[in-house]
Amino acid sequence: MFIGIDLGGTKILTAVSDDSGRLISTVRIDTEAKKGIKSVLKNVVKSVELALAKPGIKLSRIKKIGIGTPGPVINQSTVVHAPNIPGFKNFNIKKELERRFKKPVIVENDANAAAYAEYMFGAGKGSKNMVYITVSTGIGGGLILDGKLYQGSFGTAGEIGHMIVQPGGNKCGCGNRGCLESMAAGPYIARAAGKKNAIEVKIAALKGNKIAKKAIEKAANYIGVAIADLNNLLNPDIFVIGGGVTNMGSLLFKPMVKAAKANSMREPRKHLKIVSAKLNNNVGVMGAIAICFDNKRKVTI
Amino acid sequence: MFIGIDLGGTKILTAVSDDSGRLISTVRIDTEAKKGIKSVLKNVVKSVELALAKPGIKLSRIKKIGIGTPGPVINQSTVVHAPNIPGFKNFNIKKELERRFKKPVIVENDANAAAYAEYMFGAGKGSKNMVYITVSTGIGGGLILDGKLYQGSFGTAGEIGHMIVQPGGNKCGCGNRGCLESMAAGPYIARAAGKKNAIEVKIAALKGNKIAKKAIEKAANYIGVAIADLNNLLNPDIFVIGGGVTNMGSLLFKPMVKAAKANSMREPRKHLKIVSAKLNNNVGVMGAIAICFDNKRKVTI
Repeated sequence: MFIGIDLGGTKILTAVSDDSGRLISTVRIDTEAKKGIKSVLKNVVKSVELALAKPGIKLSRIKKIGIGTPGPVINQSTVVHAPNIPGFKNFNIKKELERRFKKPVIVENDANAAAYAEYMFGAGKGSKNMVYITVSTGIGGGLILDGKLYQGSFGTAGEIGHMIVQPGGNKCGCGNRGCLESMAAGPYIARAAGKKNAIEVKIAALKGNKIAKKAIEKAANYIGVAIADLNNLLNPDIFVIGGGVTNMGSLLFKPMVKAAKANSMREPRKHLKIVSAKLNNNVGVMGAIAICFDNKRKVTI
Repeated sequence: MFIGIDLGGTKILTAVSDDSGRLISTVRIDTEAKKGIKSVLKNVVKSVELALAKPGIKLSRIKKIGIGTPGPVINQSTVVHAPNIPGFKNFNIKKELERRFKKPVIVENDANAAAYAEYMFGAGKGSKNMVYITVSTGIGGGLILDGKLYQGSFGTAGEIGHMIVQPGGNKCGCGNRGCLESMAAGPYIARAAGKKNAIEVKIAALKGNKIAKKAIEKAANYIGVAIADLNNLLNPDIFVIGGGVTNMGSLLFKPMVKAAKANSMREPRKHLKIVSAKLNNNVGVMGAIAICFDNKRKVTI
């Protein structure tokens, strides 16, 4: 059996799975990020104990523990920095959790873990090369290349949200301008439409509000161009698109697919395949479990 | 021993190498592309015969023949289309050459082959993940990921020149607008500077011509932004930059590296390494030889 921990800035979702990745129990508790690193770790441990207690499973039956965390992760162990969890700065969470649980712990960036979940259990099952893009309050991504989670030479690959799609565009949280995230993530769509959040924009667009529709189309176009760039560059079997903003459905997907096709080169355009993610709210915790399965991945530094 | 054939729209450069990739003889003849596909094939065969005859080596001593060709290549055998060689349209050049030489023939896109040459014999030696960008009359590229030439699911990966770096920008040869190629390749730099070619732009810039300097800087900035996108996305050990336009030296490299750093995210920026290609004019033929060496690559379709 495995344990997967989806550590977020607000909530911790922890699950126990059987050997095939089927969830046996899940537990959701507050991260209490503001209380500091010790409280966060205490809550992580508590979530694991609760997830085991629920079905009455002993820790001794667990083979591995996977954890998906915000921020870049190096060595599958150390979180470089996670802006929404104070204290997670060059923090070796693997060592910390292995000390407490006496089990192998695998740490991965949350978007990378989610990508691997869609590849192992979701919409990308059976593919060889898969690009995962998640559009919510930010835009993240993950690459499965040759059947493996591609991490890059230093562990930080997959930052699709920070490709520059509009030189001199909106100021992004990363400090740069015109990143895909700053042109197409939920808060930026809301801002462009003069609404509080992406859900309000969706409701307005469905009611025929032209400014709302235009804001979604513009964002969708940028995501489509980024997909085309990645299609020309990586020529994958499949693009899997997830995250809260995809709840906009065809309002988003139609112009996105159109832009992706229009901007792909002739050959890769023929093979372009874009689908919705399948795992929805569980993708984070499924990702944390998926990385426990992988024996092929190696760390380079 | 191996034979490498660098098939271009104007010239064919063919070489015989020993088992370590050292060139024993090279021959350069006209492609005569305009005379049609039969003449091109006749010239390819002739170039091989001449390259063997020069040092008096018999065909029987050759293990494999590699050929780098313009245009997308699928199945390591079929050229989908090569605009500058009429008749190369869904053309299985592997079959044709294997019939004539009775030797295994490996076909690869020229930019991909060049990337593999820099990885095997040039500036990328010893790296694990390498991005190769060649800037000349067009902009091509190749990706070495996990020590292998990455071809994508359908064989057309690596089209770095057709990432959109300026929405609505210059019209590109591919039919699209604002591709890196259309914003930064030699002819576009020349046009922006009001000169006939990139060499004239370089000379003018060295004499202090501000328009020429500005044109180079602008192109360099776009290449730098594309490098940053790739750095955030693929997090490689090294970027190897080749092609005729790189003869501009620091006029191009300085603003390019500056833009690449400025647009990279904090973590991948720390590891950003950009170097000049090493193999220069021989990169094409060395690439055709390099692909003969590779036993690890598999074709998916």
